[in-house]
Amino acid sequence: MSDLKEYLAERCQIVDAALDRFIPSAGTRPATLHKAMRHSVFAGGKRLRPILCLAAAEACGGAVENAISNACATECLHTYSLIHDDLPCMDDDDMRRGVPTCHKVYGEAMALLAGDALQALAFELVAKTPGTPNHTAAAMVLELARTAGSLHLVGGQVADLEGEGKKLPLEDLRFVHEGKTAALLTTSVKLGAMSANASTAQMQALHDFGMATGLAFQIIDDILDVTQTSEKLGKSAGKDVASEKSTYPALMGLDASRAEAHRLTEAANRALDLFGEKGTRLRQLADYLLNRDY
Amino acid sequence: MSDLKEYLAERCQIVDAALDRFIPSAGTRPATLHKAMRHSVFAGGKRLRPILCLAAAEACGGAVENAISNACATECLHTYSLIHDDLPCMDDDDMRRGVPTCHKVYGEAMALLAGDALQALAFELVAKTPGTPNHTAAAMVLELARTAGSLHLVGGQVADLEGEGKKLPLEDLRFVHEGKTAALLTTSVKLGAMSANASTAQMQALHDFGMATGLAFQIIDDILDVTQTSEKLGKSAGKDVASEKSTYPALMGLDASRAEAHRLTEAANRALDLFGEKGTRLRQLADYLLNRDY
Repeated sequence: MSDLKEYLAERCQIVDAALDRFIPSAGTRPATLHKAMRHSVFAGGKRLRPILCLAAAEACGGAVENAISNACATECLHTYSLIHDDLPCMDDDDMRRGVPTCHKVYGEAMALLAGDALQALAFELVAKTPGTPNHTAAAMVLELARTAGSLHLVGGQVADLEGEGKKLPLEDLRFVHEGKTAALLTTSVKLGAMSANASTAQMQALHDFGMATGLAFQIIDDILDVTQTSEKLGKSAGKDVASEKSTYPALMGLDASRAEAHRLTEAANRALDLFGEKGTRLRQLADYLLNRDY
Repeated sequence: MSDLKEYLAERCQIVDAALDRFIPSAGTRPATLHKAMRHSVFAGGKRLRPILCLAAAEACGGAVENAISNACATECLHTYSLIHDDLPCMDDDDMRRGVPTCHKVYGEAMALLAGDALQALAFELVAKTPGTPNHTAAAMVLELARTAGSLHLVGGQVADLEGEGKKLPLEDLRFVHEGKTAALLTTSVKLGAMSANASTAQMQALHDFGMATGLAFQIIDDILDVTQTSEKLGKSAGKDVASEKSTYPALMGLDASRAEAHRLTEAANRALDLFGEKGTRLRQLADYLLNRDY
């Protein structure tokens, strides 16, 4: 795993350097807006989505430089959704990634607008990605747009909000988790694969991998919310219980939740069979996400 | 002008029918979200941006059916920006297009998310537009993304907020107006033209037309805010004075502002010279925007 640690650190650097190039500098007019965008993007995220995107590109035989703008797009989209989730009218969170949330530093209006601009930037970055014979840049935009929209990312957020204080059936909880988390993880690997001219079979395998890893990821997130401290997580822990959210631990208990996350991770790894050796990094990443403690 | 009135009514119907097809039905899960999106989109907007988009496509010899998803994208993007502008942390407006604003009906969180989903939908619709030999769908996405982002639409909004209570120099006011209004009007005509495989000369002409008409449009908006009632406008009048915003009327008086809007509209119409007869609708639309009283 020390090899993986180095790999993650090296990938983080590549992604951070690219994000720094893609986001207008803090001095660009209007300066406050660009500072606010940079505050949240460079608050120390783990860059899981862009790292998964790059790993999927390589699993399909593609190059990092063709996938990097798609990779950064997934991080911009993820960061925008965090900024908006943290707003007072949503989860009203003060801390994120171990630093004060965007609206605590820049005010609500600026945080709202920084999130809006990061969503637009995500689409700009995907539209700039070179198309391939199997996948036009427009097809990549369509992939991101559907995931970002009312049926997935935003839809999952709404279902999550509406589920507060209720005990959701497992099927509804899956809708929330697939929309909030699994959809964007899946799109991250698919955007990497598309930049590498992936075949239909590779796309299907990565879809299955992404959905299973994404659900496992969210189950682990819910477990950590119960078992870890806010300090360790860099965000408020115990929020799910406080807001009476339905979660896997709440519905089936911690042990059964851990078992489900294991089962999903195994399914994710099986989906990678057709990649053989080239799927090693993706397998390592799925295991890492399963075993993380923050 | 009675001919123009019929034309506008007919175009409104085409755009509304397409929006109704493109936005998930009010019963689609999560239902509240889709109701909130539809509340604002179908609140009776004048559909100026999509109508300009379709008129530009026709000026370039293109067909309505190739431009319609781009046209609807401009309306989705515009509506999202209105929903977010109206939020309590921004302009805190209760009425828009003559009906209660999204957050007054659905609450702040749902309005925030409805806006977010409409932005994603705008990009989905552009990515779906058929590309042409001169313009790929990805190039169209890039056009919309740059306009929607931190340097134009969102940037103009920030500069507008930061200018409250200050007397901005005319140059800064232009930055606000170009970002908030002229950029999206320009992109609307350009997206129509791109769907019609416009030449470089046609694109440049429509860029000049859009920027001039867009600035004139915003000056007229500022004039109407001073001279008309809230009832007539369907939104709160007199807000610019109340929030001490810099506007053309505040900086140069009503008469000089009207003269500037006239000058810009003439410049816009001159830019259309290379379209000859085919530019007639665009010229009529520019004159209509100049002479409107709401």
